[in-house]
Amino acid sequence: MENADDLRALAQELAPDMTALRRDLHCHPETAFTEYRTAALLVRRLEALGWHVVMGADAQRPEARLWAPDAATCARERERAVAQGADAALVRRMADGLTGLWAEMRFPDNGTDGPLVALRFDMDALEIQEASGPEHRPAREGFASCHRGSMHACGHDGHVALGVGLAALLARIRHRLRGRVRLLFQPAEEIGGGAGPMIAAGALDGVDWLIGLHLGMQAGETGGIACGTDCFLATTTFTMQFDGRPAHAGMTPHEGRNALLAGATAVQSMQAVTRHSGGASRVNIGQFHSGDATNIIAGSAWLAGETRGETTEVNAFMMAEVERMAQAAASMWGCSCLLTRTGECPSAASSPRLTGMVEAEARDMGLFRQIAYTAHFQASEDFAWLMNKVQEQGGQAVYVQLGADRPSGHHTDHFDFDERALPLGLELLARLTSRCLGSGAGGR
Amino acid sequence: MENADDLRALAQELAPDMTALRRDLHCHPETAFTEYRTAALLVRRLEALGWHVVMGADAQRPEARLWAPDAATCARERERAVAQGADAALVRRMADGLTGLWAEMRFPDNGTDGPLVALRFDMDALEIQEASGPEHRPAREGFASCHRGSMHACGHDGHVALGVGLAALLARIRHRLRGRVRLLFQPAEEIGGGAGPMIAAGALDGVDWLIGLHLGMQAGETGGIACGTDCFLATTTFTMQFDGRPAHAGMTPHEGRNALLAGATAVQSMQAVTRHSGGASRVNIGQFHSGDATNIIAGSAWLAGETRGETTEVNAFMMAEVERMAQAAASMWGCSCLLTRTGECPSAASSPRLTGMVEAEARDMGLFRQIAYTAHFQASEDFAWLMNKVQEQGGQAVYVQLGADRPSGHHTDHFDFDERALPLGLELLARLTSRCLGSGAGGR
Amino acid sequence: MENADDLRALAQELAPDMTALRRDLHCHPETAFTEYRTAALLVRRLEALGWHVVMGADAQRPEARLWAPDAATCARERERAVAQGADAALVRRMADGLTGLWAEMRFPDNGTDGPLVALRFDMDALEIQEASGPEHRPAREGFASCHRGSMHACGHDGHVALGVGLAALLARIRHRLRGRVRLLFQPAEEIGGGAGPMIAAGALDGVDWLIGLHLGMQAGETGGIACGTDCFLATTTFTMQFDGRPAHAGMTPHEGRNALLAGATAVQSMQAVTRHSGGASRVNIGQFHSGDATNIIAGSAWLAGETRGETTEVNAFMMAEVERMAQAAASMWGCSCLLTRTGECPSAASSPRLTGMVEAEARDMGLFRQIAYTAHFQASEDFAWLMNKVQEQGGQAVYVQLGADRPSGHHTDHFDFDERALPLGLELLARLTSRCLGSGAGGR
Amino acid sequence: MENADDLRALAQELAPDMTALRRDLHCHPETAFTEYRTAALLVRRLEALGWHVVMGADAQRPEARLWAPDAATCARERERAVAQGADAALVRRMADGLTGLWAEMRFPDNGTDGPLVALRFDMDALEIQEASGPEHRPAREGFASCHRGSMHACGHDGHVALGVGLAALLARIRHRLRGRVRLLFQPAEEIGGGAGPMIAAGALDGVDWLIGLHLGMQAGETGGIACGTDCFLATTTFTMQFDGRPAHAGMTPHEGRNALLAGATAVQSMQAVTRHSGGASRVNIGQFHSGDATNIIAGSAWLAGETRGETTEVNAFMMAEVERMAQAAASMWGCSCLLTRTGECPSAASSPRLTGMVEAEARDMGLFRQIAYTAHFQASEDFAWLMNKVQEQGGQAVYVQLGADRPSGHHTDHFDFDERALPLGLELLARLTSRCLGSGAGGR
Repeated sequence: MENADDLRALAQELAPDMTALRRDLHCHPETAFTEYRTAALLVRRLEALGWHVVMGADAQRPEARLWAPDAATCARERERAVAQGADAALVRRMADGLTGLWAEMRFPDNGTDGPLVALRFDMDALEIQEASGPEHRPAREGFASCHRGSMHACGHDGHVALGVGLAALLARIRHRLRGRVRLLFQPAEEIGGGAGPMIAAGALDGVDWLIGLHLGMQAGETGGIACGTDCFLATTTFTMQFDGRPAHAGMTPHEGRNALLAGATAVQSMQAVTRHSGGASRVNIGQFHSGDATNIIAGSAWLAGETRGETTEVNAFMMAEVERMAQAAASMWGCSCLLTRTGECPSAASSPRLTGMVEAEARDMGLFRQIAYTAHFQASEDFAWLMNKVQEQGGQAVYVQLGADRPSGHHTDHFDFDERALPLGLELLARLTSRCLGSGAGGR
Repeated sequence: MENADDLRALAQELAPDMTALRRDLHCHPETAFTEYRTAALLVRRLEALGWHVVMGADAQRPEARLWAPDAATCARERERAVAQGADAALVRRMADGLTGLWAEMRFPDNGTDGPLVALRFDMDALEIQEASGPEHRPAREGFASCHRGSMHACGHDGHVALGVGLAALLARIRHRLRGRVRLLFQPAEEIGGGAGPMIAAGALDGVDWLIGLHLGMQAGETGGIACGTDCFLATTTFTMQFDGRPAHAGMTPHEGRNALLAGATAVQSMQAVTRHSGGASRVNIGQFHSGDATNIIAGSAWLAGETRGETTEVNAFMMAEVERMAQAAASMWGCSCLLTRTGECPSAASSPRLTGMVEAEARDMGLFRQIAYTAHFQASEDFAWLMNKVQEQGGQAVYVQLGADRPSGHHTDHFDFDERALPLGLELLARLTSRCLGSGAGGR
Repeated sequence: MENADDLRALAQELAPDMTALRRDLHCHPETAFTEYRTAALLVRRLEALGWHVVMGADAQRPEARLWAPDAATCARERERAVAQGADAALVRRMADGLTGLWAEMRFPDNGTDGPLVALRFDMDALEIQEASGPEHRPAREGFASCHRGSMHACGHDGHVALGVGLAALLARIRHRLRGRVRLLFQPAEEIGGGAGPMIAAGALDGVDWLIGLHLGMQAGETGGIACGTDCFLATTTFTMQFDGRPAHAGMTPHEGRNALLAGATAVQSMQAVTRHSGGASRVNIGQFHSGDATNIIAGSAWLAGETRGETTEVNAFMMAEVERMAQAAASMWGCSCLLTRTGECPSAASSPRLTGMVEAEARDMGLFRQIAYTAHFQASEDFAWLMNKVQEQGGQAVYVQLGADRPSGHHTDHFDFDERALPLGLELLARLTSRCLGSGAGGR
Repeated sequence: MENADDLRALAQELAPDMTALRRDLHCHPETAFTEYRTAALLVRRLEALGWHVVMGADAQRPEARLWAPDAATCARERERAVAQGADAALVRRMADGLTGLWAEMRFPDNGTDGPLVALRFDMDALEIQEASGPEHRPAREGFASCHRGSMHACGHDGHVALGVGLAALLARIRHRLRGRVRLLFQPAEEIGGGAGPMIAAGALDGVDWLIGLHLGMQAGETGGIACGTDCFLATTTFTMQFDGRPAHAGMTPHEGRNALLAGATAVQSMQAVTRHSGGASRVNIGQFHSGDATNIIAGSAWLAGETRGETTEVNAFMMAEVERMAQAAASMWGCSCLLTRTGECPSAASSPRLTGMVEAEARDMGLFRQIAYTAHFQASEDFAWLMNKVQEQGGQAVYVQLGADRPSGHHTDHFDFDERALPLGLELLARLTSRCLGSGAGGR
């Protein structure tokens, strides 16, 4: 067991750097699979701290991705990242969206014994236009997004900062540790697409303990914590492209094949997929874009949606219904429909023993005012793939939610978080890592 | 009656200039109420030809518009027009979208007798991104739209060229005429919004004969003509803004108020407004835009659509149904709906006597291979307001459709037309104008 | 030309018998293809008047029927008819619903010359429960339907009475006529099913002139008349049987396949079939029956509906859409759908020359206060098959609407009509028949 | 504790009588609030066994019913019951549907001490037409329903037989017991309507222990048992009457107000009420009846449905949505809607201690092959009102499911059950009653 006072002091010492880094990232948000600048910056800093970095094609299998931006977008984003100071050679290695990476350190340096503890940090931003008014601190203090239409509205900027903070802290106390630590920085969490390709490339091979942490969420204000999280809903995200035939709405309506109507029919029907007695389910069509003119029967429509299920089976039922309905809605109006799955997560739950260890450390820290053993998530996270994988290979995994004051909800244009949560989180992660290392391969 | 040979020669002589003007306009398309460059150019040319121009606030009543672009858009568009060579002082007089104008000439100059013949030419382009491939002549020959997202895809560029051609031709034969001619250049035909404000400003006061002409449409290829047009459908265009409450689709779906669903429900129901035994009806929701994310229940949705009716009463029935349904669809999902009427046209039909005069001239010209007395329109045109107004005050009105080869349909990104139709059209309009002047106030 | 005074006197003389017959039929309504008692009674009376009757398998082709009652129903209805006094041998000859018949008379008896004039009378009642209150004359005066759930609510009882009256009248003046007259008594008009099988059996072979008459409808009150009728809408009637899988709505909803929902989806979509620019169209799902319990997901649903079109082509378009939609609605909810066409009529219009002859006779009679040359039907009638057939073979056909006061609309449970219309109609039909016979095969 | 061997022998001895009674009831099924014959028979037999019976207006408050059959139906059903041998005086006391009753016995006779144990037996049948083929034992052996359209398809006939068996058994061992037993025979369980009025009349006053038992259900085959049941879903049942305006679908469709369409819209929307993160929810529209003709726009539609919720709050949310949607669907098509709540149950769960006592007895009997501690119901039962009431007053309540072979599911026309389950159930209930009496007022 570590010297706890020491960890707190280190966490406090690293806080200003984490805040500065978080603000720099907040200013330069990068959406799924275009995290070139973030990743290049991480490689530089992690290597400087003595970590061994695995990146690019070594850190993820591109063929395991359900979706990726097209080559032109990637090229444009790489150029942008370099213009913003990213190392061009590193960016080149990331090719078309291979932005995930991991950093490993052994204790001692040449050691081969001891458990392997992994921590996951997600890097991607959202396609939201950030608020610009003076009531929004990032705008007021000059670190609001400089990218039109994208924003760190979920706190992943803070997660990356925590990951770098932890890398620095562990490097400082490396002589006191035994085993291995692997820090995973994953892209494309928001679309449920970054974890799978990294697992396929071996990111979790040999992992005994896996820790994920999210700021805010169900843990409430700064000083709150949910030590573990269960009821991760299995989910699938998808797009639908309906194609029909445009026609003049006055002269020849009967020659049209109304794709907008096909989309509307799909929306109504999918919302009405029957309840499943095997557990909670969800469905949402969240985007609908169709048509350029009022006097033309719309020949195409693009929609995007998602299903969820308390179990992977319930989610599979939902998607089977959705897929049949998409075709039926198209057929109803003489159109075609191409449904593309863009992301997928299984259901998951935190491991009880590791959750208990989080609770013990949280109580021991004496800084948390609200400690919940577990939160009932009812949401989905790419982390579920990672948890399931580690649990399948006999390890333990946990998803911690760390309270942080927020003026506005996640995924809103006024999102921001209380940066005092960063040293709290760093201390907790340092304690946990240390404790897991001390607990041997017991995660297995 | 005019010397017909002479008119043909003049029309041929003016053809190259009409083609050049049409291509210049095609390259600089301007959408509803932003026709600053087109109008400024017209004022200059018409005045140079000796016509008296009425423009700006004198030529249209802004308060008679159902819709107009916002001030910021107008300012940006004025700036753009000036940058493209438009006279700044003229552009300024057009204020926020007062781009309609008319030009009048008396024969003889100081005459007060004789009938008043008006011709209408529409100026606005569409929000369509023009095709750029080599198969598209405007792209191949370098006169494709230089404005991203807008295009002359309906032939109004040709109409304006015809109007200027006619202005030049009549100026040349002014000594042979008696009475008055008024050339109306109207904005915003595509949204059914430009004619009303010009009527309100007196554009049709005293008009005995009114002629409108459209290239292509139901008249088929070059050499075809529909001398008149009936069955103009009454129409209303509208937008709908549904507002609900966003919510996380996994965690708190029951807290959401799904505006996207409200929109989908409106689309399905409005398509199903019952048939009316009083005549043909139409309804189309042509645009649907809602949502930014798959995991958020969409809190707002924007739709645009239209109704039509064989009579103004049938159209009124359709809109009454649509308006009730919009509120019911909103209420169905706990949302609100703001429906805004953006355009409106009545039903109309060409006057038989004037249609007969068109047919006589067309036959007399000997250049048309396909002559139809009348076409059954089943579409809507802002010109209906003008026709009805002239017919109400005892005049005669006609809407001529002039055949022109087209590689692709109206309102498509590959639209183009055979410019050989321009001298054909000019000769016909010159003959008709001359004949109407010769027929006295018989229009009344 | 007949002696008109004489015809009026005869019509008046026959009025009491027509009224008595009409009331007897009103009391014993028989729905489509079960008109056993009506037909047996007709055969007896027509033969007694000297007419040659063709009936049973000679008068209709059963295989030309789209729908027919099942054998058990027919057996039960035959038994019922016999119990109500119908001749058992005649009823037996009508087998399973072969209730149509025609009666022919030659003038002179052994003549072979002269034109053939046909008149059509429909015999079937509706599945409506007749009103029983004292405000309803048939109930008050004791001739309301004695059959639970069926009623002469359209006036066909009066039509049959007119047919018998005409048979009697013509028999009385047979010495004055030359040519042939054929009286067609058709079953199943209400479901658009009785005319086709009679045509297939030769009912219209050689017919020069064809007259149909309907009481009430668009002709208004007693004293009104529409001499001809155009705009018969083509129509198809159909039933849909949706089959799914029932399930307990609480315990296992996901195991159900909701046929009631499939039906509801079909209803909404079919109502929304796009307008056709080729002319007026209609669609209506008029019946929906599904489900026995609130806690069971309904495993089956039965619906019935119809389409119409101003032309046969427009109606065909409507039905093609409806058929695709039925399958799509079934597929949407994992069900199957069996769509069965139960009736079909083409579009049609009265022949102008014959319509003119009706108008001339009507004016000549001096008894009509409201005479319309033609009525714009916008409804459908099995008679359209007959009209089209006669017109195709070069003859003339007309559909007369004869005004009659009615306390309540057609197809309502309080329907009744002013019996003073009967002698008016008889006189008109006698005049017309006589005039057609006198006009030779001019119908052709 | 009783002598167990003795109870088994008594249960076996009473088995033939229970079977005979069950078959007599099966042959004479009576639906909600018309259980006149069943109740009259019960009063006679219970009084003969020495039980004190409370019935009619003393046993239920009519004003606490959400729904009841109309007076004419009740009169007809009373007449029918008397014709089938029911005591006329008793039937008269049951007035319009006051068919519930309870029987009480004290041990010793004049005792005032000891706990009060209540058992509930439901009496009503379903509106299902029973199968008549030889594959169906009740038909084959001559005890199938003699009432057209109603059937004991849920096993309540067996429940009543068990109640009478228990009454007889307890009377036989009365000298060995101490305390009070109350046997509740409730009407209208299937519509969730009979329990409330009995509670309002005091049926549960002073009850310490409450036991309900259902044959079959989730307990599987004969020899299976679910000792308790949780996850009773709260539920509301309702009917909807949509009223519009009929119109001829061809001539005047625009004059109609389509109630069938309003119903279809309601069905689609209600199926799509959003999921609630507070727990499982359900919605089902199980019945839809509208329209008499294909050519008439239906002027009215009658639908019936239900909502459910894992908690009473979730069910309240569902009903709030349904009620708003009913009005919106009516408004969509210009109709009105009257929604009437016809039944309501809260959520509920069995008391753990009493469930444990059931399990102990079941294991002790040694006759059960499959013993589950609890079943996750996901259905609704009027018994939930009774359980909640007893638990609120400090007592314990349990709902036992007793396995029984069934050739076909509950609520199907081939439902039947293995009568060997009856002595099993009787022995269990006797043991439990005895044990509860011996456990004092511990239920409280």
